[in-house]
Amino acid sequence: MAAGELSVSEAEAALSGYATTDAGRFDAARETRRGVPEAILAEGKTPAEVGSLAVTAVETAGRALVTRAEHAHRDAVEGAVANAHPEADVVVDERSRVVVVHALDFEPPALDATVGLVSAGTSDAVPLGEADAVASEMGADVRRVEDVGVASIARLLDRVDDLRACDVVVVAAGREGALPTVVAGLLDAPVIGLPVSTGYGHGGEGEAAMLGMLQSCTVLSAVNVDAGFVAGAQAGLIARRIDAARAE
Amino acid sequence: MAAGELSVSEAEAALSGYATTDAGRFDAARETRRGVPEAILAEGKTPAEVGSLAVTAVETAGRALVTRAEHAHRDAVEGAVANAHPEADVVVDERSRVVVVHALDFEPPALDATVGLVSAGTSDAVPLGEADAVASEMGADVRRVEDVGVASIARLLDRVDDLRACDVVVVAAGREGALPTVVAGLLDAPVIGLPVSTGYGHGGEGEAAMLGMLQSCTVLSAVNVDAGFVAGAQAGLIARRIDAARAE
Amino acid sequence: MAAGELSVSEAEAALSGYATTDAGRFDAARETRRGVPEAILAEGKTPAEVGSLAVTAVETAGRALVTRAEHAHRDAVEGAVANAHPEADVVVDERSRVVVVHALDFEPPALDATVGLVSAGTSDAVPLGEADAVASEMGADVRRVEDVGVASIARLLDRVDDLRACDVVVVAAGREGALPTVVAGLLDAPVIGLPVSTGYGHGGEGEAAMLGMLQSCTVLSAVNVDAGFVAGAQAGLIARRIDAARAE
Amino acid sequence: MAAGELSVSEAEAALSGYATTDAGRFDAARETRRGVPEAILAEGKTPAEVGSLAVTAVETAGRALVTRAEHAHRDAVEGAVANAHPEADVVVDERSRVVVVHALDFEPPALDATVGLVSAGTSDAVPLGEADAVASEMGADVRRVEDVGVASIARLLDRVDDLRACDVVVVAAGREGALPTVVAGLLDAPVIGLPVSTGYGHGGEGEAAMLGMLQSCTVLSAVNVDAGFVAGAQAGLIARRIDAARAE
Amino acid sequence: MAAGELSVSEAEAALSGYATTDAGRFDAARETRRGVPEAILAEGKTPAEVGSLAVTAVETAGRALVTRAEHAHRDAVEGAVANAHPEADVVVDERSRVVVVHALDFEPPALDATVGLVSAGTSDAVPLGEADAVASEMGADVRRVEDVGVASIARLLDRVDDLRACDVVVVAAGREGALPTVVAGLLDAPVIGLPVSTGYGHGGEGEAAMLGMLQSCTVLSAVNVDAGFVAGAQAGLIARRIDAARAE
Amino acid sequence: MAAGELSVSEAEAALSGYATTDAGRFDAARETRRGVPEAILAEGKTPAEVGSLAVTAVETAGRALVTRAEHAHRDAVEGAVANAHPEADVVVDERSRVVVVHALDFEPPALDATVGLVSAGTSDAVPLGEADAVASEMGADVRRVEDVGVASIARLLDRVDDLRACDVVVVAAGREGALPTVVAGLLDAPVIGLPVSTGYGHGGEGEAAMLGMLQSCTVLSAVNVDAGFVAGAQAGLIARRIDAARAE
Amino acid sequence: MAAGELSVSEAEAALSGYATTDAGRFDAARETRRGVPEAILAEGKTPAEVGSLAVTAVETAGRALVTRAEHAHRDAVEGAVANAHPEADVVVDERSRVVVVHALDFEPPALDATVGLVSAGTSDAVPLGEADAVASEMGADVRRVEDVGVASIARLLDRVDDLRACDVVVVAAGREGALPTVVAGLLDAPVIGLPVSTGYGHGGEGEAAMLGMLQSCTVLSAVNVDAGFVAGAQAGLIARRIDAARAE
Amino acid sequence: MAAGELSVSEAEAALSGYATTDAGRFDAARETRRGVPEAILAEGKTPAEVGSLAVTAVETAGRALVTRAEHAHRDAVEGAVANAHPEADVVVDERSRVVVVHALDFEPPALDATVGLVSAGTSDAVPLGEADAVASEMGADVRRVEDVGVASIARLLDRVDDLRACDVVVVAAGREGALPTVVAGLLDAPVIGLPVSTGYGHGGEGEAAMLGMLQSCTVLSAVNVDAGFVAGAQAGLIARRIDAARAE
Repeated sequence: MAAGELSVSEAEAALSGYATTDAGRFDAARETRRGVPEAILAEGKTPAEVGSLAVTAVETAGRALVTRAEHAHRDAVEGAVANAHPEADVVVDERSRVVVVHALDFEPPALDATVGLVSAGTSDAVPLGEADAVASEMGADVRRVEDVGVASIARLLDRVDDLRACDVVVVAAGREGALPTVVAGLLDAPVIGLPVSTGYGHGGEGEAAMLGMLQSCTVLSAVNVDAGFVAGAQAGLIARRIDAARAE
Repeated sequence: MAAGELSVSEAEAALSGYATTDAGRFDAARETRRGVPEAILAEGKTPAEVGSLAVTAVETAGRALVTRAEHAHRDAVEGAVANAHPEADVVVDERSRVVVVHALDFEPPALDATVGLVSAGTSDAVPLGEADAVASEMGADVRRVEDVGVASIARLLDRVDDLRACDVVVVAAGREGALPTVVAGLLDAPVIGLPVSTGYGHGGEGEAAMLGMLQSCTVLSAVNVDAGFVAGAQAGLIARRIDAARAE
Repeated sequence: MAAGELSVSEAEAALSGYATTDAGRFDAARETRRGVPEAILAEGKTPAEVGSLAVTAVETAGRALVTRAEHAHRDAVEGAVANAHPEADVVVDERSRVVVVHALDFEPPALDATVGLVSAGTSDAVPLGEADAVASEMGADVRRVEDVGVASIARLLDRVDDLRACDVVVVAAGREGALPTVVAGLLDAPVIGLPVSTGYGHGGEGEAAMLGMLQSCTVLSAVNVDAGFVAGAQAGLIARRIDAARAE
Repeated sequence: MAAGELSVSEAEAALSGYATTDAGRFDAARETRRGVPEAILAEGKTPAEVGSLAVTAVETAGRALVTRAEHAHRDAVEGAVANAHPEADVVVDERSRVVVVHALDFEPPALDATVGLVSAGTSDAVPLGEADAVASEMGADVRRVEDVGVASIARLLDRVDDLRACDVVVVAAGREGALPTVVAGLLDAPVIGLPVSTGYGHGGEGEAAMLGMLQSCTVLSAVNVDAGFVAGAQAGLIARRIDAARAE
Repeated sequence: MAAGELSVSEAEAALSGYATTDAGRFDAARETRRGVPEAILAEGKTPAEVGSLAVTAVETAGRALVTRAEHAHRDAVEGAVANAHPEADVVVDERSRVVVVHALDFEPPALDATVGLVSAGTSDAVPLGEADAVASEMGADVRRVEDVGVASIARLLDRVDDLRACDVVVVAAGREGALPTVVAGLLDAPVIGLPVSTGYGHGGEGEAAMLGMLQSCTVLSAVNVDAGFVAGAQAGLIARRIDAARAE
Repeated sequence: MAAGELSVSEAEAALSGYATTDAGRFDAARETRRGVPEAILAEGKTPAEVGSLAVTAVETAGRALVTRAEHAHRDAVEGAVANAHPEADVVVDERSRVVVVHALDFEPPALDATVGLVSAGTSDAVPLGEADAVASEMGADVRRVEDVGVASIARLLDRVDDLRACDVVVVAAGREGALPTVVAGLLDAPVIGLPVSTGYGHGGEGEAAMLGMLQSCTVLSAVNVDAGFVAGAQAGLIARRIDAARAE
Repeated sequence: MAAGELSVSEAEAALSGYATTDAGRFDAARETRRGVPEAILAEGKTPAEVGSLAVTAVETAGRALVTRAEHAHRDAVEGAVANAHPEADVVVDERSRVVVVHALDFEPPALDATVGLVSAGTSDAVPLGEADAVASEMGADVRRVEDVGVASIARLLDRVDDLRACDVVVVAAGREGALPTVVAGLLDAPVIGLPVSTGYGHGGEGEAAMLGMLQSCTVLSAVNVDAGFVAGAQAGLIARRIDAARAE
Repeated sequence: MAAGELSVSEAEAALSGYATTDAGRFDAARETRRGVPEAILAEGKTPAEVGSLAVTAVETAGRALVTRAEHAHRDAVEGAVANAHPEADVVVDERSRVVVVHALDFEPPALDATVGLVSAGTSDAVPLGEADAVASEMGADVRRVEDVGVASIARLLDRVDDLRACDVVVVAAGREGALPTVVAGLLDAPVIGLPVSTGYGHGGEGEAAMLGMLQSCTVLSAVNVDAGFVAGAQAGLIARRIDAARAE
């Protein structure tokens, strides 16, 4: 209403947490139900559609979380938000191609629980950044431990104390995907494996990493290849439970 | 020593939580590290080997957890335990083919956290029973909601309140594997998908279920096909964190 | 002959329902045989070829049905038809990329039978629109129930009465492809599963959805990934039989 | 009650169409819902379990339909039924390994609709027989056209008139699975492809047939490999709709 | 030497049937050995490279056979040949993207043997044209029977006499790939299956067709997907043997 | 009639080359059509069925060709034939598990054409023997060159002259399946690749061999894994054409 | 000759290192060529065949190396050798199912080079034992480092000095197959990955391990799943080169 | 420091062999550990990033090795190096798209060991060139034997003496990938198979070659498809061991 872009019936729909615009549909009810922010996947959408959806998200849920955003998408989001809600806060993470927008009056949640995010190398940046964004938006205290691939095991061992301070840990790895297994063997927190679509030839595009995590000789669960959002959200759901338990 | 079957050096190894016998190796140190009991997979071992390993486990860790036990394996475990530790407690679950042995003085852990176990039908019994056994042995309060397949959605909806009372939920499903997605859409607790190797022809032996859980349009993580032990242990690790948070 | 573009021999071929032009071949005999309109798949053809084939179709069969048409294809069809048959009716569906052309004197069939079309989300629009176009062209009374994915089961349950009014139902779903199974469990009409090539990583591009429909624990048949035309035509063939039975 | 084997509470459950015994669970409610009889898959069950389930089915739904029954299963069914319900009618089809039991007072449905069943060769007997059994039990008028593989096309052409008299046609084929495509090209009734797990080496066990049916260049839908029950039931659901239309 | 482009040592190499230029290597010795002309695959090469290789081929073997040539490749070949050997004969087949060049004094072989080439539809044009080109260049009498897909079986039956006049038959088919099986069932000549990369979704890109030919329930051999050159050359090798036998 | 086992109507069916008995169906018309003897695949049939089919084959076509015969099958064939046609000739090849039966008055065809059969090692014996049996039964002059695997290339080179004397060559190979490529590079006769299901682990059961033959960098066609019968029959069809050409 | 079992012509063949008996063929020439002993794979052979081949091997090459030997195979080898060459030395390794026979006068080679063999757990025993047997028979100094799986990284780090003393290292691992990557990251010797067919469900039977080794983010080469013989022989070939270099 | 581009802390990091810049991370410690130069994979990076990383590599390790460099990457490397270290030596290999840069004072290692590199054809140039670059940079004496594909076996046999002079041999092959098997059968040096992503259709993109090498019926190990760097480095590690042994 503020921006003069929503009709009354659209506003009503938005109040119930569900909005449909020409650019697509935005379902904030899911956010209410599980505490997981709805993400806008920029891949396969035009910049204008993404910009429009981001504004709808801000108006419906108070914030927008855009993933896989190319430069044109980021520009479109910044432009559309600046136009409709000039006071809103827009944060762009270049490495992970994530954009987060907060309305002026949005009060982000804060959980008393720590999510660890571990990666083998720089090529894991996009899914790890997505996991970071969603877990952070859910309110978790996120700690990153990067560049600790299994071929240089000493670097990982140097960071074990950082990892042991976490309540739940997401471990991203491409190629042979062994890192979650090694990490889980060192911790007593739950570990979620996040396979990354690096690698080439036989078993490439994350297949070897995916299968390796499913075959792990230690205890862990996994998400699909490059599903950084899902991994971060699952860690966030666990963190919410722990936070609630601490608050009892 | 008690049973006259361990040499002194073997007993010392056992004290450090690691024992090797003719029947194989038993690593109780892993149990100490993550709180997950070591399981003895009966499949592919002779009854005598399984019986011997169960005795070693009881002597090393205070308990034994045997999975995929055929009748001959169960008889061998009962016989070997009765011989070496007549006072130990042996519980056999016929449906899930799991045997649990507790030494007389074993004090099982108890967690202030609830693990829900959901299944679509009777063919999920083996992996669901494994998940039950390991989560129970880790001390979780386990609640089962069975026979709620998606083709009869009303039966599942009748049980939603039971599910909403859980801290973490494992959902087993074979065939098309849709149940974890539907359940996760109804809850705000973390959900772990457990694909089961039912099904036939194209996508059979759990492949469709596995892929369906990885592709889920809601937030969940998954374990490998029939990995009931891993699913239950991951739920147990989460339950341990929640129990610890409640105790803070 | 009307448009001065067909030679006598070509016209004779057209009368027998089969025409070959420089742009390709058009087989209206198939249409006569099964009542299913021949579709012109624009993908992989030049706009000029598609425009030319559409004109041939109108001249041979009285109508043209073009699928997977990009903007250039649509423009070419509109231009070619406007030039050759200015009085023909051209309808473009932007979302599903389908173009339908009717000659001035074309009398569309009308069946006394209802085809339901169900989809999980907006990403199913293209194949669902193709199913709609072909079933409608065959004369069925088409009813759409959209945006009822299994992760928000309540929305689907709200629409059950609409679905129970249909004689045959096509259910499109990508990702884990569970929707046809849930729908078939609620109805006694035949259900045809239509997997959609959404999804990513392991089991992506419709593979998990395809396998999930083949593994369904209820009764349904399926078509290939994104085969909206085939699903709609199969529903149309069933509708034709029911219409004929009603007319007996 | 008659046989003295059901307790009162079990009998009540049976009246609501759902029974659980030591041998497993039998869900007649599904039968009520869609008109498709519940089948008892003998494969993987002991003869005693199958015998017991067959008796439960007769008592719950008035009939039993057992598939993939080896000799021992058939003997067990005959023995268990003879003991509990000596007056019941038991029919065994050796070729397709299907057993059908009708209680004395069971009144089978009869539909005014014809289901055609086509096969390429003798190796299709098991799934074709399953399709026959379920469609017949649903009341359809079943007509079989066998031994008309595509490598001897003349034999198929001799039977076209028989096929054109059917309302819906199930076509079974193994190896390269081309028969449904050729049949569908000759008819205007809906065709359901049923791939059979013949074949060897690359693409064997029904894979080539399954893929060939999904890739068919004509209109048809398909079920999974060897899913004779599903194919027959889908044809039965269509026949029920046509029968109802004829009765309007 | 004629064109002033080969050094003496290069000419010597060419006489022995093997030439290496900056654009690549050309091995006419293979041509001498088996009578199969070396083809220049344009795909993945620059137009200049293809033009240069074509000239080398003409100078080494008396002719050039270029496949998968885009417009730019065809122009480059015509330009390079016109420059170096203005009197050479260049024939371009637009549909199959094949270019054939004959030196002025090249005497093409002529075999007393007939190769039949059969296709299901227009989408088989490229590999069928490649088979045509190589078999024709080997000297066979090539006869084409096109547009006889199995979904319209009558059209194929109309052409049986044409097919029975052939010594060996290549049958191209995409989608479900059933045509070679049906054709082989009608003939006593050897049949070579040529799968084509049409089709989509599950089993697409020629996979279903490839597997269907390997699983054929009649006698035939097959080549890889889109391997029109190999299929035509294999037919040519058989034709050469038959020609030789006729000449004995 | 001779054996008193066929009724008059059965005998009439047999005269037209098509017989159906309790043991199955035997189609001698195919034999008439293409000159390829119908084979009886013993695998998956009982000894009694195979014995009965062999007798039917002898009575219908004058001979029987049984493949994949275990000892019990061979005994059953010998017994059944001895009983019904004591004067018939039965030849058993232990290595390839093939049994050939000729009626007393059967006149085997004789072709003026040579089929070469090449194998890498002793594990290729079964499919190579099947190819031998069918090509021999079709009348070809069969020459075998065995034990010439590519890892010992000298042994193959020693036999090149033998191979060059053949009109068509079948080359069997398992594991990496390279032998047909090497052989085809040495000959100008057509080569048919026959992959064998040796090998283990990744690419085992003939997959690597199958793919290697389809990818061959020289000209050859292939049959499916272990399809010795098809390879031999395809070679026989080529030999028949060459024989006919020699006879012109 | 000694055992009275070889004819003169057979003895001559044996002298040239190549013998064929009823039980099969034994090629000692390969042994001479590369220094790798020919192994007799017991799997798929009868005990009698394996016994006979072992005697032939001893007579031809001075020794026999039998792999995948079940108890019956071992008994047959011991019996056959005891009969023919009572003075020969027979060593059976129960865990790895390998039998090694040395003739009385056989002088085993001895290399001045060390081969390390590393394994994750007891389930790697069979392929690791095969690697041990062949490398030892080639004369290498073999050192084993067992039970050092990546889920308990400390145990591996304790053994690094042992590994650094090796010239070449074979690392066996099943499940996720990460161990070779971690080991290679710690050493400067060449590492050969040996995937083991443990694991279950998705990526089981060694697939994940195989792909993980091919995708390793460090430098290593790999052999096929369970190819312990090949891994050991490749290590042996490297050891031979190093030994020769040391001897220069 | 020389180029004024590194801060003091960056220089310290560089001294310990590990540098992180805006363009990415460069880990020279790995080079120190195993003697294998770190490669900069240009594919997927911008020219500017590659140029910057090359300068960092030269400053950290004394040299840079860039693979998969397109023209723009090569120009960027030449420009960046010319700017920062004008005296450095830059060598570009057009065919294999490899760039090697040596600082003025870099002293390349030299090993007394020979690495053979064998290829089937010109399409193997890129991975073979990568193997050449890394083995040469490690100091090996590299000898190339090219264009010796198995379809023209004589050309390979002509080069056997060259191959027998090598200490270790890398054999690249695409399509059916048979060359390493044939080469290994001729040599007693260790052979490393390098599959190349040529080929098309079924088994294309190097799959058939990869599987063929894993299934080889002789002794060899393999690397992943197109992993020229890994193959060359593994050969280099073996060469280093042999050189060290020669130096003892």
